[in-house]
This record gives sequence, structure tokens and C-alpha cells, in this order.
Amino acid sequence: MTAADVEAYLHEHIPQSISMGVRVASLDERGVRLTAPLSPNINHRGTVFGGSAAAVAMLAGWALVHAHLAGRPDVRLVIRRQQMEFDAPIDGDFDAVCEDPGDEGWAQFERGLEHMGKGRVQLRVRLNRGAADLATFDGVYVAVSA
Amino acid sequence: MTAADVEAYLHEHIPQSISMGVRVASLDERGVRLTAPLSPNINHRGTVFGGSAAAVAMLAGWALVHAHLAGRPDVRLVIRRQQMEFDAPIDGDFDAVCEDPGDEGWAQFERGLEHMGKGRVQLRVRLNRGAADLATFDGVYVAVSA
Repeated sequence: MTAADVEAYLHEHIPQSISMGVRVASLDERGVRLTAPLSPNINHRGTVFGGSAAAVAMLAGWALVHAHLAGRPDVRLVIRRQQMEFDAPIDGDFDAVCEDPGDEGWAQFERGLEHMGKGRVQLRVRLNRGAADLATFDGVYVAVSA
Repeated sequence: MTAADVEAYLHEHIPQSISMGVRVASLDERGVRLTAPLSPNINHRGTVFGGSAAAVAMLAGWALVHAHLAGRPDVRLVIRRQQMEFDAPIDGDFDAVCEDPGDEGWAQFERGLEHMGKGRVQLRVRLNRGAADLATFDGVYVAVSA
């Protein structure tokens, strides 16, 4: 599954990803990176609306699990909980980066999905602008076999 | 400050509030209630996208503090952290309800703002559809004197 595949899926199925101008910039064994522009996500202070920041972060983690599950359309994927720290205002276009947890990180998720019909993975997403980390998101995603 | 005032402010300054179809249904001494339709916030499963749910919840808390601060334009208001539990899919139009914490709840916020130039308040927002609570959001909002 390529970055373009995931972007097309998001844009087709989650219209807010279009409203927020979300693009999937890269997707590989290291993880996924989404980008979003300031303009449609601006707030009353000229920086990124916290709700957009949370939504883009959530999509980054979601995109990574979706790509991991590629070819398993019988599995549905939802977010169970999330938390987020806003360390500084995001004053321009920004990235949401979710690192791939690697084989070990996925192992428990896969075991749960295989044996219990339900896999769970916790992912961290960092929002940054250039080299600056500005917010951190932790989300728990659950995949359930249909 | 009326519900219409807050809605006009959100729509003017946070364009994502328009993209998500957010309305301020009520604002009084009991708290604030926002509404949002399913359609622009739909996800790949035909229910509400978690990112929209988080963004609307965040706006509900924000709107309550904004209304509380009415007439103090020298105070800027940001979200510092938030967490959210998704208990069940939101399968239609939904409400985000933030109860007013009352005089006692605001007392610490006001003391901080007066004496330290920074007030902090934690607010809970419930997302519901009809009588069903479907998700819970807790946000910490910080107001800083300019």
C-alpha cells in the first residue's frame, strides 16, 4: 500500500481529511507522515486550531494501522482512546509523524487479532513544523475481525 | 454573551467549525451545547470520524471559557492538553455538552488569572446522540493575560 493509496482512501471515505487539506507525504517501513496546511485549519489566534491538530494526528495513527492491515478488508479499525499535549502553538503548515512500531510492536496486535478477533496497538504521533516538535498525541487503535 | 454570539465568533475565526457544521444550540448558566451533523463528519464506517468528535468536543469546552471571559479581550485562551474515550460509534448527528463548573469551579481559574496572569480550568465534555453518552472528553484550557 502506497502513500497515494492511503491518501485516496482518506479523501474518499473521510471528507474532513479534504476539508483540512491532509496529504499523505510518505509511507514506508519507518512510518507515515501526513501534512496539513495552516490556512483551512486556522484559529482565532492565527495558529492551528487544536481540533484540527488532534484530527490530523488521529488520522496519522489510523493511516499507519490501515496500511498495516492492507489486504484484510474484513477487519474494521476504530480509535478507542487518545490523549494529546499541546506544547506550543503551531504557527504554520505542519506534519504529523507516526513511527512504525516494528515487528515487535505489532506482535501483540497480531496475536490479539488472530486469537481473540481483536487487536490493539498504541501509537504515538508527533506534530511538528520543521524541526520543532509542537504537540504529542497518543492513541489506542483497535482492529476487530468481522 | 449569547449562543448566537459564540457561534458567529467560531464561524468567523475557526473555519473548521463551518466545515464540520457546528452550531451553538444553547449557552446559559448550566453550560453550553453544540450540535454537529453526521454528513460532513462521516468516516469510512458511516459513523462520525473520531477527529471530528474530538474537534467538536474541544470547541464545546473552548466556547464555555470564551463566554465566561466575555468582555476581557486582553486574555488569550488556548488548550493545553486533552484526552478522550470513545465508548461507542456515533452513528448520526450528535451533541457536545459542556457543563458550567459553577462559581466554585471558576474560582481557582479566576484567582490564577488575577494573581499570576494565568488561569487554568479543566472541563468535561460529553458527546451524545439523543439520550446515549457515546464519548467523553476532558480538556485543560489555559487563559493568559496579555
